Amino acid sequence: MSITNTKKTVSEAVIKRLPRYYRCLLNLEHLGMNKVSSKNLAEMLDITASQVRQDFCCFGGFGQQGYGYVVPKLREALGEILGLNSNYNLIIVGGGNIGRALANYRGFKNDGFNINAVFDINPDAIHIDGIPVFGMESLSDYLKNNPTDIAIIATQRIAAQSVCNTLVELGIRSIWNFAPVKLEAPQDVVVENINMIESLFVLTYRMTNKTTES
Amino acid sequence: MSITNTKKTVSEAVIKRLPRYYRCLLNLEHLGMNKVSSKNLAEMLDITASQVRQDFCCFGGFGQQGYGYVVPKLREALGEILGLNSNYNLIIVGGGNIGRALANYRGFKNDGFNINAVFDINPDAIHIDGIPVFGMESLSDYLKNNPTDIAIIATQRIAAQSVCNTLVELGIRSIWNFAPVKLEAPQDVVVENINMIESLFVLTYRMTNKTTES
Repeated sequence: MSITNTKKTVSEAVIKRLPRYYRCLLNLEHLGMNKVSSKNLAEMLDITASQVRQDFCCFGGFGQQGYGYVVPKLREALGEILGLNSNYNLIIVGGGNIGRALANYRGFKNDGFNINAVFDINPDAIHIDGIPVFGMESLSDYLKNNPTDIAIIATQRIAAQSVCNTLVELGIRSIWNFAPVKLEAPQDVVVENINMIESLFVLTYRMTNKTTES
Repeated sequence: MSITNTKKTVSEAVIKRLPRYYRCLLNLEHLGMNKVSSKNLAEMLDITASQVRQDFCCFGGFGQQGYGYVVPKLREALGEILGLNSNYNLIIVGGGNIGRALANYRGFKNDGFNINAVFDINPDAIHIDGIPVFGMESLSDYLKNNPTDIAIIATQRIAAQSVCNTLVELGIRSIWNFAPVKLEAPQDVVVENINMIESLFVLTYRMTNKTTES
């Protein structure tokens, strides 16, 4: 994980585009495409070619003028920047619908994300093939004995902050939060949120807006 | 759904903040809070008070200088702008982990989103309490007989575009897409994406970035 660039200056918008570039390049690589221009990438991401070149500039370039990018090399370089060359150990707290769906989704493993355990206040009611389910009281012992990189919070809104506090106390420094609440965490803890209801409301906004336009 | 404002000028960033204001206000309303200042709202959303006032300006204000906002009134006004005063009929295409998790999530109903049916290529393998599961061949007949506002695509990546095409042909004009692929759809179709893997990659980017900083 030795990356030599000045990422501190990278804007939020660029950070959010990086995974899109990565997935796009991975798909091209699977299709056997070896070269891609910034124009091609721009079309696929619905942005401008100059935006693509500017984004990659933040990381020192990657391409030669008038030549385009070598797909596997660019994919690998972006993968390194995104921290995808590592394997990650994960746990899920909350064994409800979302927690179970995430635990059952096998695609994470292909990207190096291993979900090793699920914790719930009612572990006996939950069965997940191939992943052990423990009660919340086991969390502390588990984390002492099993180095864990990322904790997924998939609890109800009301429980999320207290679960977050417990995880942070137990040494977790990266949280992927599916509960619809803004979590308070120390500065050195990375929290990334997925808020499904907010996305649904953006959809209805666009539907409503469209209706009034036509 | 008669909204009288000039929403065409509303930026993407403002649109994405609207659901956050809405949820925040709903929580305050549940707590019994009647008045809120732009400063309060700004703190809760991690933005500046002038940003809050500027955002609401896009919709004609809502508040009086030095007085703050009346929580239930502001919540209701934002709800109308977001199209949340309607009931919506939804279907889910794809009965895998994500499709089933969404179907089983009862919270949508409280916000007026009714998931009425799930479609899958292998319907017999899927059981969801209280929601019928049909084969893909029934989609056309179902949509003819059951007015549907929103289709959720929760298929594999490879199937998503063809499912999208079918839905659009059958008259669907709003799609909530969980498949990790950019869907091509006509201009009058609203597509809102949730890309979980991209969010996870942003998390690992921040983890990796943090590591190199310290």
